[in-house]
Amino acid sequence: MRSDEQAICELHSAWIEAVNAGDLDRLLTLMADDAVFLSPGQSPFGREEFSINFPAAHQRNRIGCVSELEEVVVVGGVAYTRSRDALHVTLRADGSTTRLSGYRMTVYRKQPDDRWLLDRDAHTLSVTEP
Amino acid sequence: MRSDEQAICELHSAWIEAVNAGDLDRLLTLMADDAVFLSPGQSPFGREEFSINFPAAHQRNRIGCVSELEEVVVVGGVAYTRSRDALHVTLRADGSTTRLSGYRMTVYRKQPDDRWLLDRDAHTLSVTEP
Repeated sequence: MRSDEQAICELHSAWIEAVNAGDLDRLLTLMADDAVFLSPGQSPFGREEFSINFPAAHQRNRIGCVSELEEVVVVGGVAYTRSRDALHVTLRADGSTTRLSGYRMTVYRKQPDDRWLLDRDAHTLSVTEP
Repeated sequence: MRSDEQAICELHSAWIEAVNAGDLDRLLTLMADDAVFLSPGQSPFGREEFSINFPAAHQRNRIGCVSELEEVVVVGGVAYTRSRDALHVTLRADGSTTRLSGYRMTVYRKQPDDRWLLDRDAHTLSVTEP
């Protein structure tokens, strides 16, 4: 049987894969109904806003994210992780690329059916010099 | 008996009070030994770096922080919160003020002696126009 730590690592990989594939449907299956995201310069947002903004960002840009898990802490039905993330966002209109890097702290909750879902996520990504 | 939620609210207030008072000793009693902080544009840092940078920032600046708790979630021995924060940083040398605002996500852990301590903290504060 795989451990909770393994399940979280797999969920983290599945998340990044779906982000890079622009696969909103998949992402929605990986987050809790009341998921909340914190981003610099934005108000906290949930599933609904995510469902609008994520496809819009992918339509305007080619997006590539690399995320390295630095820690996974599991305590009963809660887990929290820290990852180091790098993102490149290339505007489809003119090919200009913005690079961001930083860290991400995510809280996961174990569901009654033993699946883990993303519950809270805060990142500190900022634009890096080319 | 006070609830865990109350204990977290009190810890949150005590933290902000100590930040505004420049009281490093008090802050160190409120965080876990392995506490980690995430800030935009910085690498993750712990107690040691906090102990160097916090007093240095207070020596250079007058610092005032207001923080409003928006949610407190307690699950067994783990709690996580979201707060909306505003910070003003006034350089003692010339009186110039920078204002920052954003959100903060914090993870707390209950200790064997029932005290709660700050364990992980990520904020998205960025400079706001005056």
